[in-house]
Amino acid sequence: MTVRRVDPGRRDRIVEATLEVIAAAGVAGTSHRKVAAAADVPLGSMTYHFAGMDELLREAFTRFADRAADSFDAQMAGARTVADALKVVADSIVAGAGQDDLVLTYELYTLAAREPGYRAITEGWMARTRAALEQHLDPLTARLLDALIEGLSIHRALDRDPAGSAHIVEAIRRITRR
Amino acid sequence: MTVRRVDPGRRDRIVEATLEVIAAAGVAGTSHRKVAAAADVPLGSMTYHFAGMDELLREAFTRFADRAADSFDAQMAGARTVADALKVVADSIVAGAGQDDLVLTYELYTLAAREPGYRAITEGWMARTRAALEQHLDPLTARLLDALIEGLSIHRALDRDPAGSAHIVEAIRRITRR
Repeated sequence: MTVRRVDPGRRDRIVEATLEVIAAAGVAGTSHRKVAAAADVPLGSMTYHFAGMDELLREAFTRFADRAADSFDAQMAGARTVADALKVVADSIVAGAGQDDLVLTYELYTLAAREPGYRAITEGWMARTRAALEQHLDPLTARLLDALIEGLSIHRALDRDPAGSAHIVEAIRRITRR
Repeated sequence: MTVRRVDPGRRDRIVEATLEVIAAAGVAGTSHRKVAAAADVPLGSMTYHFAGMDELLREAFTRFADRAADSFDAQMAGARTVADALKVVADSIVAGAGQDDLVLTYELYTLAAREPGYRAITEGWMARTRAALEQHLDPLTARLLDALIEGLSIHRALDRDPAGSAHIVEAIRRITRR
Protein backbone atom coordinates (compact mmCIF):
# COMPACT_ATOMS: atom_id res chain seq x y z
CA MET A 1 0.00 0.00 0.00
CA THR A 2 1.36 3.37 -0.96
CA VAL A 3 1.42 6.05 1.65
CA ARG A 4 0.44 9.29 0.05
CA ARG A 5 1.85 12.30 1.82
CA VAL A 6 -0.82 14.89 2.16
CA ASP A 7 0.56 18.40 2.16
CA PRO A 8 -2.30 20.82 1.65
CA GLY A 9 -0.13 23.81 2.53
CA ARG A 10 2.35 23.15 -0.22
CA ARG A 11 0.86 25.40 -2.88
CA ASP A 12 0.60 28.20 -0.37
CA ARG A 13 4.19 27.71 0.74
CA ILE A 14 5.36 27.90 -2.87
CA VAL A 15 3.65 31.27 -3.29
CA GLU A 16 5.29 32.63 -0.13
CA ALA A 17 8.67 31.26 -1.17
CA THR A 18 8.29 32.95 -4.55
CA LEU A 19 8.04 36.34 -2.81
CA GLU A 20 11.16 35.55 -0.76
CA VAL A 21 13.10 34.58 -3.87
CA ILE A 22 11.98 37.69 -5.78
CA ALA A 23 12.98 39.91 -2.86
CA ALA A 24 16.42 38.31 -2.82
CA ALA A 25 17.12 37.70 -6.50
CA GLY A 26 14.65 39.82 -8.47
CA VAL A 27 12.03 38.66 -10.95
CA ALA A 28 14.73 38.01 -13.55
CA GLY A 29 16.68 35.84 -11.10
CA THR A 30 13.68 33.80 -9.99
CA SER A 31 13.54 30.20 -11.20
CA HIS A 32 11.42 27.16 -10.42
CA ARG A 33 14.51 25.56 -8.96
CA LYS A 34 15.21 28.41 -6.51
CA VAL A 35 11.57 28.63 -5.45
CA ALA A 36 11.33 24.87 -4.91
CA ALA A 37 14.45 24.99 -2.73
CA ALA A 38 13.15 27.96 -0.72
CA ALA A 39 9.75 26.28 -0.24
CA ASP A 40 11.41 22.96 0.56
CA VAL A 41 9.33 21.06 -2.00
CA PRO A 42 10.43 18.73 -4.81
CA LEU A 43 11.10 20.52 -8.08
CA GLY A 44 8.41 18.40 -9.75
CA SER A 45 5.68 19.80 -7.55
CA MET A 46 6.24 23.25 -9.07
CA THR A 47 4.83 22.19 -12.41
CA TYR A 48 2.07 20.23 -10.67
CA HIS A 49 0.82 23.36 -8.92
CA PHE A 50 1.68 26.09 -11.44
CA ALA A 51 1.40 26.16 -15.22
CA GLY A 52 4.57 28.24 -15.48
CA MET A 53 6.58 31.17 -14.22
CA ASP A 54 3.92 33.65 -15.33
CA GLU A 55 1.25 32.04 -13.16
CA LEU A 56 3.67 31.86 -10.24
CA LEU A 57 4.65 35.55 -10.51
CA ARG A 58 1.06 36.60 -10.99
CA GLU A 59 -0.12 34.74 -7.93
CA ALA A 60 2.80 35.85 -5.76
CA PHE A 61 2.46 39.54 -6.64
CA THR A 62 -1.32 39.37 -6.28
CA ARG A 63 -0.87 38.01 -2.77
CA PHE A 64 1.70 40.72 -1.99
CA ALA A 65 -0.61 43.49 -3.23
CA ASP A 66 -3.67 42.01 -1.49
CA ARG A 67 -1.82 41.81 1.80
CA ALA A 68 -0.70 45.46 1.54
CA ALA A 69 -4.23 46.52 0.57
CA ASP A 70 -5.79 44.50 3.44
CA SER A 71 -3.49 46.20 5.90
CA PHE A 72 -4.19 49.69 4.56
CA ASP A 73 -7.91 48.99 4.44
CA ALA A 74 -7.91 47.91 8.08
CA GLN A 75 -6.01 51.06 9.06
CA MET A 76 -8.50 53.27 7.23
CA ALA A 77 -11.47 51.39 8.67
CA GLY A 78 -10.03 51.98 12.14
CA ALA A 79 -9.79 55.74 11.73
CA ARG A 80 -12.73 57.60 13.30
CA THR A 81 -12.35 60.98 11.65
CA VAL A 82 -10.81 62.42 8.49
CA ALA A 83 -8.02 63.93 10.61
CA ASP A 84 -7.31 60.50 12.14
CA ALA A 85 -7.22 58.91 8.70
CA LEU A 86 -4.82 61.52 7.35
CA LYS A 87 -2.58 61.09 10.39
CA VAL A 88 -2.45 57.33 9.76
CA VAL A 89 -1.51 58.02 6.14
CA ALA A 90 1.26 60.45 7.15
CA ASP A 91 2.62 58.07 9.77
CA SER A 92 2.72 55.18 7.34
CA ILE A 93 4.67 57.24 4.78
CA VAL A 94 7.14 58.32 7.46
CA ALA A 95 7.53 54.75 8.73
CA GLY A 96 8.13 53.52 5.19
CA ALA A 97 8.03 49.95 3.97
CA GLY A 98 10.53 47.33 5.06
CA GLN A 99 13.43 46.59 2.72
CA ASP A 100 11.85 43.45 1.24
CA ASP A 101 8.50 45.14 0.67
CA LEU A 102 10.23 48.08 -0.99
CA VAL A 103 12.12 45.82 -3.36
CA LEU A 104 9.01 43.73 -4.09
CA THR A 105 7.00 46.87 -4.88
CA TYR A 106 9.52 48.12 -7.45
CA GLU A 107 10.02 44.65 -8.87
CA LEU A 108 6.26 44.59 -9.48
CA TYR A 109 6.26 48.08 -11.03
CA THR A 110 9.15 47.16 -13.31
CA LEU A 111 7.39 43.98 -14.39
CA ALA A 112 4.14 45.85 -15.03
CA ALA A 113 5.98 48.60 -16.94
CA ARG A 114 7.54 45.91 -19.11
CA GLU A 115 4.50 43.65 -19.51
CA PRO A 116 1.09 45.32 -19.51
CA GLY A 117 -0.62 42.03 -18.54
CA TYR A 118 0.64 42.54 -14.99
CA ARG A 119 -1.07 45.93 -14.72
CA ALA A 120 -4.23 44.15 -13.59
CA ILE A 121 -2.35 43.65 -10.30
CA THR A 122 -1.13 47.25 -9.89
CA GLU A 123 -4.52 48.53 -11.00
CA GLY A 124 -6.35 46.33 -8.51
CA TRP A 125 -4.03 47.48 -5.74
CA MET A 126 -4.64 51.16 -6.58
CA ALA A 127 -8.40 50.58 -6.76
CA ARG A 128 -8.37 49.06 -3.27
CA THR A 129 -6.21 51.86 -1.84
CA ARG A 130 -8.58 54.44 -3.28
CA ALA A 131 -11.62 52.61 -1.95
CA ALA A 132 -10.01 52.55 1.50
CA LEU A 133 -9.34 56.30 1.32
CA GLU A 134 -12.92 56.88 0.13
CA GLN A 135 -14.12 55.82 3.55
CA HIS A 136 -13.02 59.35 4.52
CA LEU A 137 -12.53 61.38 1.34
CA ASP A 138 -14.35 62.15 -1.90
CA PRO A 139 -13.27 59.99 -4.88
CA LEU A 140 -11.19 62.68 -6.61
CA THR A 141 -9.30 63.59 -3.45
CA ALA A 142 -8.76 59.89 -2.72
CA ARG A 143 -7.25 59.40 -6.16
CA LEU A 144 -4.95 62.42 -5.88
CA LEU A 145 -3.88 61.48 -2.36
CA ASP A 146 -3.14 57.93 -3.52
CA ALA A 147 -0.75 59.31 -6.17
CA LEU A 148 0.84 61.65 -3.63
CA ILE A 149 1.39 58.80 -1.16
CA GLU A 150 3.11 56.86 -3.94
CA GLY A 151 5.42 59.73 -4.84
CA LEU A 152 6.27 60.69 -1.27
CA SER A 153 6.99 57.05 -0.39
CA ILE A 154 9.32 56.56 -3.35
CA HIS A 155 11.14 59.79 -2.70
CA ARG A 156 11.63 58.93 0.94
CA ALA A 157 12.97 55.51 0.01
CA LEU A 158 15.38 56.69 -2.69
CA ASP A 159 16.67 59.87 -1.06
CA ARG A 160 19.39 59.78 1.56
CA ASP A 161 18.08 63.12 2.87
CA PRO A 162 14.35 62.52 2.68
CA ALA A 163 11.52 64.94 3.37
CA GLY A 164 10.74 65.10 7.07
CA SER A 165 7.47 64.37 8.77
CA ALA A 166 6.37 68.05 8.71
CA HIS A 167 6.76 68.17 4.92
CA ILE A 168 4.66 65.06 4.54
CA VAL A 169 1.89 66.43 6.74
CA GLU A 170 1.96 69.67 4.72
CA ALA A 171 1.77 67.79 1.41
CA ILE A 172 -1.25 65.82 2.61
CA ARG A 173 -2.88 68.99 3.91
CA ARG A 174 -2.50 70.66 0.53
CA ILE A 175 -3.75 67.77 -1.60
CA THR A 176 -6.84 67.20 0.54
CA ARG A 177 -8.00 70.81 0.50
CA ARG A 178 -10.63 71.34 -2.14
CA MET B 1 53.82 48.97 -38.79
CA THR B 2 50.72 48.29 -36.80
CA VAL B 3 47.66 50.21 -37.71
CA ARG B 4 45.92 51.14 -34.51
CA ARG B 5 42.23 51.66 -34.92
CA VAL B 6 41.25 54.75 -33.08
CA ASP B 7 37.72 54.58 -31.79
CA PRO B 8 37.21 57.44 -29.38
CA GLY B 9 33.45 56.93 -29.32
CA ARG B 10 33.71 53.37 -28.11
CA ARG B 11 33.34 54.03 -24.39
CA ASP B 12 30.37 56.24 -25.08
CA ARG B 13 28.78 53.63 -27.30
CA ILE B 14 29.15 51.03 -24.57
CA VAL B 15 27.26 53.24 -22.11
CA GLU B 16 24.43 53.76 -24.59
CA ALA B 17 24.30 50.06 -25.39
CA THR B 18 24.09 49.29 -21.68
CA LEU B 19 20.87 51.30 -21.46
CA GLU B 20 19.46 49.45 -24.46
CA VAL B 21 20.29 46.09 -22.92
CA ILE B 22 18.81 47.05 -19.53
CA ALA B 23 15.61 48.24 -21.23
CA ALA B 24 15.33 44.93 -23.06
CA ALA B 25 16.63 42.42 -20.49
CA GLY B 26 16.60 44.19 -17.11
CA VAL B 27 19.54 44.85 -14.81
CA ALA B 28 19.59 41.20 -13.78
CA GLY B 29 19.74 40.09 -17.40
CA THR B 30 22.52 42.49 -18.39
CA SER B 31 25.95 40.97 -19.03
CA HIS B 32 29.23 42.20 -20.47
CA ARG B 33 28.68 39.86 -23.36
CA LYS B 34 25.25 41.26 -24.27
CA VAL B 35 26.42 44.86 -23.96
CA ALA B 36 29.51 44.20 -26.11
CA ALA B 37 27.30 42.66 -28.79
CA ALA B 38 24.83 45.57 -28.68
CA ALA B 39 27.66 48.14 -28.84
CA ASP B 40 29.40 46.14 -31.56
CA VAL B 41 32.72 46.11 -29.69
CA PRO B 42 34.99 43.17 -28.80
CA LEU B 43 34.19 41.61 -25.43
CA GLY B 44 37.72 42.44 -24.26
CA SER B 45 37.15 46.16 -24.58
CA MET B 46 34.48 46.01 -21.87
CA THR B 47 37.03 45.28 -19.16
CA TYR B 48 39.42 47.81 -20.70
CA HIS B 49 36.86 50.60 -20.29
CA PHE B 50 34.95 49.51 -17.19
CA ALA B 51 36.17 47.97 -13.95
CA GLY B 52 33.04 45.85 -13.69
CA MET B 53 29.29 45.64 -13.95
CA ASP B 54 28.80 48.07 -11.07
CA GLU B 55 30.73 50.84 -12.84
CA LEU B 56 28.87 50.13 -16.07
CA LEU B 57 25.45 50.28 -14.42
CA ARG B 58 26.37 53.35 -12.44
CA GLU B 59 27.55 55.21 -15.50
CA ALA B 60 24.62 54.15 -17.66
CA PHE B 61 21.97 55.11 -15.10
CA THR B 62 23.77 58.38 -14.35
CA ARG B 63 23.62 59.23 -18.03
CA PHE B 64 19.94 58.26 -18.18
CA ALA B 65 19.09 60.44 -15.15
CA ASP B 66 21.23 63.36 -16.38
CA ARG B 67 19.54 63.30 -19.76
CA ALA B 68 16.07 63.34 -18.18
CA ALA B 69 17.13 66.14 -15.82
CA ASP B 70 18.67 68.17 -18.67
CA SER B 71 15.45 67.93 -20.62
CA PHE B 72 13.27 68.91 -17.65
CA ASP B 73 15.62 71.76 -16.75
CA ALA B 74 15.43 73.15 -20.29
CA GLN B 75 11.63 72.95 -20.20
CA MET B 76 11.48 74.83 -16.90
CA ALA B 77 14.00 77.44 -18.08
CA GLY B 78 11.82 78.04 -21.13
CA ALA B 79 8.69 78.75 -19.09
CA ARG B 80 8.06 82.48 -18.63
CA THR B 81 5.54 82.36 -15.80
CA VAL B 82 4.58 80.03 -12.96
CA ALA B 83 1.40 79.16 -14.86
CA ASP B 84 3.46 78.28 -17.94
CA ALA B 85 5.78 76.12 -15.87
CA LEU B 86 2.88 74.25 -14.26
CA LYS B 87 1.28 73.70 -17.64
CA VAL B 88 4.54 72.18 -18.92
CA VAL B 89 4.60 69.90 -15.86
CA ALA B 90 0.99 68.79 -16.40
CA ASP B 91 1.55 68.19 -20.11
CA SER B 92 4.65 66.08 -19.47
CA ILE B 93 2.78 63.89 -16.96
CA VAL B 94 -0.08 63.42 -19.42
CA ALA B 95 2.32 62.61 -22.27
CA GLY B 96 4.14 60.10 -20.08
CA ALA B 97 7.52 58.54 -20.72
CA GLY B 98 8.20 56.20 -23.61
CA GLN B 99 8.17 52.49 -22.86
CA ASP B 100 11.97 52.17 -22.63
CA ASP B 101 12.30 55.19 -20.36
CA LEU B 102 9.55 53.85 -18.14
CA VAL B 103 11.26 50.49 -17.78
CA LEU B 104 14.67 52.11 -17.22
CA THR B 105 13.23 54.34 -14.50
CA TYR B 106 11.78 51.40 -12.55
CA GLU B 107 14.86 49.29 -13.13
CA LEU B 108 16.84 52.11 -11.52
CA TYR B 109 14.41 52.42 -8.61
CA THR B 110 14.52 48.68 -8.01
CA LEU B 111 18.31 48.68 -8.07
CA ALA B 112 18.47 51.65 -5.69
CA ALA B 113 15.90 50.05 -3.37
CA ARG B 114 18.06 46.93 -3.29
CA GLU B 115 21.47 48.58 -3.10
CA PRO B 116 21.68 51.93 -1.30
CA GLY B 117 24.92 52.84 -3.14
CA TYR B 118 22.83 53.60 -6.21
CA ARG B 119 20.74 56.16 -4.32
CA ALA B 120 23.36 58.78 -5.17
CA ILE B 121 21.90 58.61 -8.69
CA THR B 122 18.21 58.85 -7.72
CA GLU B 123 19.06 61.54 -5.17
CA GLY B 124 21.00 63.59 -7.71
CA TRP B 125 18.13 63.29 -10.18
CA MET B 126 15.60 64.49 -7.58
CA ALA B 127 17.89 67.37 -6.58
CA ARG B 128 18.10 68.52 -10.18
CA THR B 129 14.31 68.24 -10.70
CA ARG B 130 13.70 70.30 -7.59
CA ALA B 131 16.27 72.92 -8.65
CA ALA B 132 14.53 73.18 -12.02
CA LEU B 133 11.16 73.65 -10.31
CA GLU B 134 12.69 76.24 -7.97
CA GLN B 135 13.10 78.54 -10.94
CA HIS B 136 9.38 79.11 -10.45
CA LEU B 137 8.42 77.82 -6.98
CA ASP B 138 9.60 78.04 -3.38
CA PRO B 139 11.78 75.09 -2.25
CA LEU B 140 9.10 73.35 -0.17
CA THR B 141 6.50 73.54 -2.95
CA ALA B 142 9.11 72.34 -5.45
CA ARG B 143 9.84 69.30 -3.27
CA LEU B 144 6.18 68.43 -2.78
CA LEU B 145 5.40 68.92 -6.46
CA ASP B 146 8.36 66.70 -7.39
CA ALA B 147 6.89 63.88 -5.26
CA LEU B 148 3.43 64.44 -6.75
CA ILE B 149 4.81 64.29 -10.30
CA GLU B 150 6.44 60.98 -9.42
CA GLY B 151 3.25 59.49 -8.03
CA LEU B 152 0.98 60.74 -10.80
CA SER B 153 3.41 59.47 -13.45
CA ILE B 154 3.62 56.01 -11.91
CA HIS B 155 -0.12 55.74 -11.49
CA ARG B 156 -0.72 56.80 -15.07
CA ALA B 157 1.78 54.23 -16.29
CA LEU B 158 0.50 51.32 -14.22
CA ASP B 159 -3.24 51.97 -14.46
CA ARG B 160 -5.22 50.90 -17.50
CA ASP B 161 -7.80 53.59 -16.64
CA PRO B 162 -5.48 56.44 -15.65
CA ALA B 163 -6.39 59.83 -14.24
CA GLY B 164 -7.29 62.26 -17.01
CA SER B 165 -5.65 65.56 -17.77
CA ALA B 166 -8.18 67.54 -15.68
CA HIS B 167 -7.33 65.47 -12.59
CA ILE B 168 -3.65 66.11 -13.08
CA VAL B 169 -4.16 69.86 -13.43
CA GLU B 170 -6.28 69.82 -10.26
CA ALA B 171 -3.62 67.86 -8.34
CA ILE B 172 -0.93 70.36 -9.36
CA ARG B 173 -3.20 73.28 -8.45
CA ARG B 174 -3.74 71.86 -4.97
CA ILE B 175 -0.13 71.02 -4.18
CA THR B 176 1.16 74.43 -5.31
CA ARG B 177 -1.30 76.46 -3.22
CA ARG B 178 0.25 77.56 0.03
